[in-house]
Amino acid sequence: MIKDAFATHRFTSLLLLSLLSLAMHTLSGADVASADEGMWLFNHPPKKLLKQQYQFEATDKWLEHLQRSAVRFNSGGSGSFVSPNGLVMTNHHVGADTLQKVSTPEKDFINLGFQAKTQAEEIKSPDLELNVLMSIEDVTARVEAAVKADMPLADAQKARRAVTSAIEKESLDKTGLRSDVVTLYQGGQYHLYRYKKYTDVRLVFAPEQDVAFFGGDPDNFEYPRYDLDICFFRVYENDKPAKIEHYLTWSGAGCKDGDLVFVAGHPGHTDRLNTVAHLDYLRDVSVPNSLNILRRHEVTLKGYAERSIENTRRARDDFFGVQNSRKARLGGLAGLQDPTVMKKKKQEEVELRQKIGADTKLKQYASAFDEVSTAIAETKKIRVQQILWESQVAFNSELYSKAVTLLRMAEEDAKPNGERLREYRESNRESLEQSLFSDAPIFDDLETVKLADALSLMLEMAGWNDELARKVMAGKSPNERAAELIAGTKLKDVDLRKQLAKGGKKAVDASKDSMIELARLVDPTARATRKNYEEKVDEPMKQAYGKISKARFAISGADSYPDATFTLRLAFGTVKGYTEAGKSIAPLTDIGGAYKHAESHHNVEPFKLPETWLKAKSKLKLDTPLNFVSTADIIGGNSGSPVVNRQGELVGIIFDGNIQSLVLDYVFTEEQSRAVSVHSAGIIESLRNVYGANHLADELVGKK
Amino acid sequence: MIKDAFATHRFTSLLLLSLLSLAMHTLSGADVASADEGMWLFNHPPKKLLKQQYQFEATDKWLEHLQRSAVRFNSGGSGSFVSPNGLVMTNHHVGADTLQKVSTPEKDFINLGFQAKTQAEEIKSPDLELNVLMSIEDVTARVEAAVKADMPLADAQKARRAVTSAIEKESLDKTGLRSDVVTLYQGGQYHLYRYKKYTDVRLVFAPEQDVAFFGGDPDNFEYPRYDLDICFFRVYENDKPAKIEHYLTWSGAGCKDGDLVFVAGHPGHTDRLNTVAHLDYLRDVSVPNSLNILRRHEVTLKGYAERSIENTRRARDDFFGVQNSRKARLGGLAGLQDPTVMKKKKQEEVELRQKIGADTKLKQYASAFDEVSTAIAETKKIRVQQILWESQVAFNSELYSKAVTLLRMAEEDAKPNGERLREYRESNRESLEQSLFSDAPIFDDLETVKLADALSLMLEMAGWNDELARKVMAGKSPNERAAELIAGTKLKDVDLRKQLAKGGKKAVDASKDSMIELARLVDPTARATRKNYEEKVDEPMKQAYGKISKARFAISGADSYPDATFTLRLAFGTVKGYTEAGKSIAPLTDIGGAYKHAESHHNVEPFKLPETWLKAKSKLKLDTPLNFVSTADIIGGNSGSPVVNRQGELVGIIFDGNIQSLVLDYVFTEEQSRAVSVHSAGIIESLRNVYGANHLADELVGKK
Repeated sequence: MIKDAFATHRFTSLLLLSLLSLAMHTLSGADVASADEGMWLFNHPPKKLLKQQYQFEATDKWLEHLQRSAVRFNSGGSGSFVSPNGLVMTNHHVGADTLQKVSTPEKDFINLGFQAKTQAEEIKSPDLELNVLMSIEDVTARVEAAVKADMPLADAQKARRAVTSAIEKESLDKTGLRSDVVTLYQGGQYHLYRYKKYTDVRLVFAPEQDVAFFGGDPDNFEYPRYDLDICFFRVYENDKPAKIEHYLTWSGAGCKDGDLVFVAGHPGHTDRLNTVAHLDYLRDVSVPNSLNILRRHEVTLKGYAERSIENTRRARDDFFGVQNSRKARLGGLAGLQDPTVMKKKKQEEVELRQKIGADTKLKQYASAFDEVSTAIAETKKIRVQQILWESQVAFNSELYSKAVTLLRMAEEDAKPNGERLREYRESNRESLEQSLFSDAPIFDDLETVKLADALSLMLEMAGWNDELARKVMAGKSPNERAAELIAGTKLKDVDLRKQLAKGGKKAVDASKDSMIELARLVDPTARATRKNYEEKVDEPMKQAYGKISKARFAISGADSYPDATFTLRLAFGTVKGYTEAGKSIAPLTDIGGAYKHAESHHNVEPFKLPETWLKAKSKLKLDTPLNFVSTADIIGGNSGSPVVNRQGELVGIIFDGNIQSLVLDYVFTEEQSRAVSVHSAGIIESLRNVYGANHLADELVGKK
Repeated sequence: MIKDAFATHRFTSLLLLSLLSLAMHTLSGADVASADEGMWLFNHPPKKLLKQQYQFEATDKWLEHLQRSAVRFNSGGSGSFVSPNGLVMTNHHVGADTLQKVSTPEKDFINLGFQAKTQAEEIKSPDLELNVLMSIEDVTARVEAAVKADMPLADAQKARRAVTSAIEKESLDKTGLRSDVVTLYQGGQYHLYRYKKYTDVRLVFAPEQDVAFFGGDPDNFEYPRYDLDICFFRVYENDKPAKIEHYLTWSGAGCKDGDLVFVAGHPGHTDRLNTVAHLDYLRDVSVPNSLNILRRHEVTLKGYAERSIENTRRARDDFFGVQNSRKARLGGLAGLQDPTVMKKKKQEEVELRQKIGADTKLKQYASAFDEVSTAIAETKKIRVQQILWESQVAFNSELYSKAVTLLRMAEEDAKPNGERLREYRESNRESLEQSLFSDAPIFDDLETVKLADALSLMLEMAGWNDELARKVMAGKSPNERAAELIAGTKLKDVDLRKQLAKGGKKAVDASKDSMIELARLVDPTARATRKNYEEKVDEPMKQAYGKISKARFAISGADSYPDATFTLRLAFGTVKGYTEAGKSIAPLTDIGGAYKHAESHHNVEPFKLPETWLKAKSKLKLDTPLNFVSTADIIGGNSGSPVVNRQGELVGIIFDGNIQSLVLDYVFTEEQSRAVSVHSAGIIESLRNVYGANHLADELVGKK
């Protein structure tokens, strides 16, 4: 559910200060039983709430153990340590990025699955980076001291960037840990997150996609489900399995209906605290526009994939990502287009503004709502430029993207750290290179098809007579130009990329590579657009939402959580069914249900179980729980998050939300929306009796 | 290749006067050998050209026989009589509309194919109407006499409509034949087409879709191909097979490389003579917009279809149509985005305008180009309104469409014939009712999914605060509102539709049916938009293009053909291979190639041959020709057109164009663009040795 291949159009940095006032009422009122809302910070956990509502004591020790057992996949997902020997569990669809990259036409691990019988057989990922959150430090005071209230916007933006990069660099130098300043509550707070980083990550086990993504796109975001959406990796240090202090022990029984469960994961992005005008913009412009582009990519990739089995293999992970994002966005849009949701949002905003207006201390924040609207008006002006040139929708090419990185790296390196574009700051260099020098395969034919379609889209969006677009096309048609560009680049060669990176500005300037030349042509416009965006949209939005946040805190108190930022959060909820169209949906499914589901669809793709499962049926305990739902508050990015019980034992792994949960991007509701997990018992049962992976199951349950 | 499910956005009535000047040069110059261009009128055939170029004498008798053997499928395609007993051959993908409508979950004829062993087993189509062109009469003088040069646009439009309807009504009363006035050369000429109409049309034979559309979407519009894209119907009169005087006899040998062939079919629409500004509009606005909507429908239908085998069956014909249109439009857009094509167009227009400006007699037409541009500016203003309300993109529902027909029929019937909206004119009543009272199945679930998506699109396009859109939504979300509307209508019931139609305005006004009420709400806006379009776009475009046409005639002479109008045309060309990416593509494929093609794709969908073919392999002569390409000038609508040799014998049936032919919408080229046909020999071989349909094969070859 998570991998959101097209997140560029959003204000990913627009995060707001506080809770919906409705939710606040619920949380602080008498009727607390229905409030499983919240993606809570680990340095601001909902201790009081858990105690009141579930008589659960979340001790610091319990929290620290869970925090350090949780793992972030930088490819876009979550996971957890599940053994002292570096074993990491995540979803198949999170691991698929690596599965795709290490597969070949002869060994298609997505299709066939993978199992390392020994550690020697574990396969190293070309570019995966895992992060474990070691500490959080509040650096708000230092950031606020650097950005003065009376600065012009451009200066404020520069000051904010400079102080952020400085904090990160200092922290890296001091601790050796990956250090990221995270903007929370949209400028209300700035926290420094320090991560232990693992970059030698090896594939241990994956089931076949047919069972990992059983039911395919039709069942995606639906329930009941019967998916074994799991994948195991192992982190190494110095070529040996890393020794892990904090890992989750496996629950014997797993969870059952009514149990309290916790989720520690990395929700990617939410828009719950946007102003109504901002939501209007998402509903009317931003989301429909990305859906059009997603559908376009979906149809283009499908057309490419269907031409042969090998094409299908090459495009699979891309295709899944696009399809998944399309369905998620569509669900989100359904929320935005639901008048009851929007009415509630409007009402809350009216009340909030009334309170702000009525309070002499808060009046200073009253203008913030209009300031957001002004920034949105600016966004509308530069939206197309931003999407095409800076987000690279005009090219949609791996090779182009690498060319831009090389070009910019050479230019940014010449600047002081605090003045660089954020991704080129010194503290991010290792991660940047991990990705830039990946030897994951790039396919010329797929690149050409994607690029040709992107150039055609560029002509549509920029306009036929746009000067830059005309230069990009060089008098050719999209198909011709794409073929020419792909034929003219050697950037597929990792050594060449390393050489250019090492050679710096001189080497890059001298390059006649077609993609470097294209990047050189486009970059001035892309940079100008970005500058415009950062100064006229991002900075004033940060300031405006910062004001709104301060007002909310003053009115509703500080017991709240910020919108999601792809950083570690704690959610909680109850294992619980729901009612849909008058039908009661049970919270748990079992292994027997998977076979029935396949049969009821005549075992036809995507409802076909793999051979291994068909052969194993008689050996399996069919009433073993396979999937379950809970009311925990999750969103894209939570994929692979561990689900634990009161004892902190692993009882499942998040892999999806139901269709009703897609509205959680904008508003929390627990009437029908549910997080969907694989059950711990179903994992062990299938590892032992479908895959004969007893060594792995033993490692999980701690059996020597 | 033909069924263009989304043609509504186009100026289908914008047809131009003459040939490209380039083509004219070729035709009149010395180098005539390369000019297989032209979709020629049967009352203005290229006799001289055929004689010069191919030493072929197209006698009146030869032409009349071919004309009367050709059949138009009003569902959107072509066909021909192939026996004296009413047997009609067309493409599977033209017949699929009927196959879909007469199928059930138990008898899925698209999937399984169909074969009537006796005439008693032939299945009547619920709504198919076939037309055979009996005569053409030039009525230009009468139309021009009715529309005065100095009339205001609105009056001119009314006068044109009135005289057209009157001519048609008179002709129908006099001859009993279906009578349509066709606007040719965009107002340069008006011809009255009289058709014999067949409405009792029964299904005789169809192969499985797996071989009819072998290679699926990936192979669609590609070559080499190996498809048996055929379907047979029989027309009945008075419950007996109709006796047919003009039918095509089957060629013994079929055609071979280098043969001259002719195509008699119904090309739907071309834009070859548009002004450059008009092509710019198509490239920048109209085509990208329809592609977005097509992709959206494609993704929505796919999502519905994949949920179950029955869903797949229900959505199949819709899905094919949308996918096919998307690929065709994309090919067309590639032409418009090809600078060499646009440069040529621009150059021709500059030359034409210079000649007009230099000639004192033609100077009166010089303003026409700007008049077209003015009309395009008007189109841009009302485009969204037109698409949403009049073209019903806001609803995309069979049931809504029926409601509109009932509502408007009741209102239009009260007016004099000459003042009615064109589709409600008296001479069209039978055809309208044939469609309105069809008992083809309508599926509530599919209707709901399509309608919900359409309502969401309406909110995007009209804008959240649009007054009509708000009224349509009635405070609900798209999903809720769609479900409510479908639950609230009984229009699926054919008897109710007949009752309402019979009851007229009083009955319709009294109806509380949800869809009738919706139509009642929307229709004033839809009508106003249409009126606007007809007066401010259609009429001035007709007048402007009429002027350009007159100028072209004066400059280049009258040996030309008009743009396609879904009326009968004669094309010709040579069976001939081509070179693609340096590779030589042979003109013919054979039956053995089909098996090899399947094997090279591991027999996986859509490259899976049906069981019947796998079983029959040893019985088949594998070197029998199956498909072939020729240089004949065709476009969407030509699907199912007979291909005949010099003797007028049937040697094949058009079913596709290659990808390079999609540019033919805008400009003719014969370097690579080819028409793709099923070969007559492959048809007989498979009928006898795959399907054991000897009775049918015997009927085709005239064996008693």
